Amino acid sequence: MTKLNKWTKHHILSLADFTPSEYETVLQTAASLRSVLFSRTKKVPTLQGKIVANLFFEPSTRTRSSFELAAKSLSADILNFAPGSSSLSKGETILDTAKTYLSMGANVMVIRHQQAGVPEAIAAEMDKLNSGVSILNAGDGLHQHPSQGLLDLFTMCSALDEQNPRLELLKGKKIAIVGDILHSRVARSNIYSLTAAGAEVHLAGPPTLLPQLFGEILDRNQGGKLFLHWQIEPALENADLVMTLRLQKERMSDYLLPSLREYHQNYGITRKRLQLCKEDVKILHPGPVNRGVEISSDVMDDPEMSLISEQVTSGVAIRMALLYLIGTTKL
Amino acid sequence: MTKLNKWTKHHILSLADFTPSEYETVLQTAASLRSVLFSRTKKVPTLQGKIVANLFFEPSTRTRSSFELAAKSLSADILNFAPGSSSLSKGETILDTAKTYLSMGANVMVIRHQQAGVPEAIAAEMDKLNSGVSILNAGDGLHQHPSQGLLDLFTMCSALDEQNPRLELLKGKKIAIVGDILHSRVARSNIYSLTAAGAEVHLAGPPTLLPQLFGEILDRNQGGKLFLHWQIEPALENADLVMTLRLQKERMSDYLLPSLREYHQNYGITRKRLQLCKEDVKILHPGPVNRGVEISSDVMDDPEMSLISEQVTSGVAIRMALLYLIGTTKL
Amino acid sequence: MTKLNKWTKHHILSLADFTPSEYETVLQTAASLRSVLFSRTKKVPTLQGKIVANLFFEPSTRTRSSFELAAKSLSADILNFAPGSSSLSKGETILDTAKTYLSMGANVMVIRHQQAGVPEAIAAEMDKLNSGVSILNAGDGLHQHPSQGLLDLFTMCSALDEQNPRLELLKGKKIAIVGDILHSRVARSNIYSLTAAGAEVHLAGPPTLLPQLFGEILDRNQGGKLFLHWQIEPALENADLVMTLRLQKERMSDYLLPSLREYHQNYGITRKRLQLCKEDVKILHPGPVNRGVEISSDVMDDPEMSLISEQVTSGVAIRMALLYLIGTTKL
Repeated sequence: MTKLNKWTKHHILSLADFTPSEYETVLQTAASLRSVLFSRTKKVPTLQGKIVANLFFEPSTRTRSSFELAAKSLSADILNFAPGSSSLSKGETILDTAKTYLSMGANVMVIRHQQAGVPEAIAAEMDKLNSGVSILNAGDGLHQHPSQGLLDLFTMCSALDEQNPRLELLKGKKIAIVGDILHSRVARSNIYSLTAAGAEVHLAGPPTLLPQLFGEILDRNQGGKLFLHWQIEPALENADLVMTLRLQKERMSDYLLPSLREYHQNYGITRKRLQLCKEDVKILHPGPVNRGVEISSDVMDDPEMSLISEQVTSGVAIRMALLYLIGTTKL
Repeated sequence: MTKLNKWTKHHILSLADFTPSEYETVLQTAASLRSVLFSRTKKVPTLQGKIVANLFFEPSTRTRSSFELAAKSLSADILNFAPGSSSLSKGETILDTAKTYLSMGANVMVIRHQQAGVPEAIAAEMDKLNSGVSILNAGDGLHQHPSQGLLDLFTMCSALDEQNPRLELLKGKKIAIVGDILHSRVARSNIYSLTAAGAEVHLAGPPTLLPQLFGEILDRNQGGKLFLHWQIEPALENADLVMTLRLQKERMSDYLLPSLREYHQNYGITRKRLQLCKEDVKILHPGPVNRGVEISSDVMDDPEMSLISEQVTSGVAIRMALLYLIGTTKL
Repeated sequence: MTKLNKWTKHHILSLADFTPSEYETVLQTAASLRSVLFSRTKKVPTLQGKIVANLFFEPSTRTRSSFELAAKSLSADILNFAPGSSSLSKGETILDTAKTYLSMGANVMVIRHQQAGVPEAIAAEMDKLNSGVSILNAGDGLHQHPSQGLLDLFTMCSALDEQNPRLELLKGKKIAIVGDILHSRVARSNIYSLTAAGAEVHLAGPPTLLPQLFGEILDRNQGGKLFLHWQIEPALENADLVMTLRLQKERMSDYLLPSLREYHQNYGITRKRLQLCKEDVKILHPGPVNRGVEISSDVMDDPEMSLISEQVTSGVAIRMALLYLIGTTKL
């Protein structure tokens, strides 16, 4: 496989600085690596002899399994860092933990942490040490989750043209993002990629989860291309794609939500509500889903509408693409 | 390796519907795969490119290691689901968790769950989706643990004829199963396989752990071929094989047992008690063992009597056989 | 690769009985295997078909990752025992857990346990069973941590002659070991290797962590070649190498230490204090480090002085060497 475009990014920390050409390269690379997943051996030797260290300070089975499978499919070796039994409780700093894995020979570190900025800090340290190690942000606090943003983009583009998923397919499409925007690193990453693709992005959520000022700041950062709604209907009207976000149940004990039932009544994605959208509307959700809260079960299970399974498969393909691109580039 | 008989079972959920010919196929396949474990490379490429997902909602190091090793020996890739750090605590349903692993490309899912029926429900869902995924029940609640039943069968038959373990070897043998029958999925699975082999199966345990009505229902389901005892002596008398079950210490706080000491006095397997059995009697236990409770230490460590180590090795061979049979069959 | 010397040790339990020739073999083997870590594929097929079981009854991400990587680099298969979800809480004895992994086919068991003597007890049991299994002590209570002692030795010798690390390089060198000697299995293992190399070993620590009688017993066991200090200065004076030990914060609640700040003031390694040492002094720490307690951050991060990263890399090389030596020897 030859790289389709010259790739120069050494770390993947945020989608804020992604160029259209970088988005295209990721989409095309993922499309070509997706076929590996459906091949007989499910493996290519691309990253043989490379070590991918999964440093998941915030636990996540789903995302870690996805990265693990992506790394295995590229024939990399994997080191898993388990936060429970870790050196952290022994007083070691996060940077020192990362340096330990560097000294063990890690080439790529996939970092998830509950605090925004940790992957960036580790990347800065790795660069300062001239280590050659690439950092991949697998979710940092409320900040960014770039591989999720890219897999959602890839899923949407693939739904429109499976053979040739590309940015321009989303140009002018109306895309609704519904739910807890305030606490969602997924939404933040998607806003970057979808506006870069030229889509019309409509955010909808209750004022507690999409405060006016916060919405305005988001919009300002995107050159005033976002649309904000406190009701779901105007966001859904004529939408081509609807992405609903996971609702953390903790939000209720934080007094940001009265009840899950009321949330579903006002913002839940139901078949009835989807009649406002384009006829062939497609639904996305980053998972795990609270059935009957963010989305009704019958919509979620309708293969004509739901892209949720495709998102999981796309996740492995996108992570293969990212590991491939940063794992084989040299500064 | 060619399949010895046409294998048509797509899932392994229970031994209730196993036919004699299916038992024979499993025994012969395990016998031939056992040799792989003693070969130089310990590996065959049979399941290369297949993904085995271990979804252990109820944790178990021993059984998971056994399945992991079996999958590795067949060159499959493995995805482990860790319940502690899982999406379940985030409100996801078990079926959605399974579907996530399906979308990642899993070909076989090994399921352990504290509730009876979960593997069956996942199998039904996988079939409904035409996924082609096979489900292997690794223990569900108090219901079934088919790979344990099969490894016990394989261990017993191998003890009688290592080169050619087959069902008829157990015909007419007297086999005692001693202990907490009521709470044992191991016992339930063994009852199916041993009666299918034509053995005389004698259950023994205190009335709290082998209630009359429960015993009668068990017996009725087996066509009246079980023998029930509240004393251990008539079960051991002239027995060819004795399987003792693990005693969960929680049973005492449930007021089902006065003390471990009293249990051992009444139902513990000791050298003295074993004099009631045939001279060359063999002992089994599914592990982990409470030494001095279910069985005395000197009996457990006597290689002439104890088949406990053989059971562990048989476990890997049986799981290789099951993964091979369901992993290479297509509906 | 041919073995440089005839290797006869079947288990690695302690450095107490290591001969000079055994140290040399380990150093030379590690030097030659280190190059594998920097090769393109990072792998040799030496232990293909062998199973390394990591039985970490006391959890440790760092040491387990190091052993895992070492085993993978030699192409061994790995079984991990997770204490959290283990059979131990179910009443199984440690020896029975080990025997389960034996029956699964483990060839080498790497054991870490909070109690001194557990690896030795397992080794005795394995020998009694004529199992052929080798035991590698990865840290047992306050007793020994031989792979750490050997990696420290290898790091020091490599710092003096990278191409040809050998015991005589340390002859006559002054080496200070500073900190919580009383509770350190690392110190105990290092004392054996460094005195065997003919170094002058100076122990320094507060009297609560280096009690007079304990120091005298240590010294007596080493033929009176240790030097004991309750002040750090005489230990550092003219030292060639300084190893500082991890301070467990629990020591304060045990009333053995007034505060971390006071410890740092009296025994912390700072740039100023290091002026007492030889000009090209090198610093070691087994990690994880409490920055600003055992050692000041600027010293730790100074690549001219600190060998801490080298220790991590050496750790993988030494563990490869040990697994290679015991994994390919036969009784």
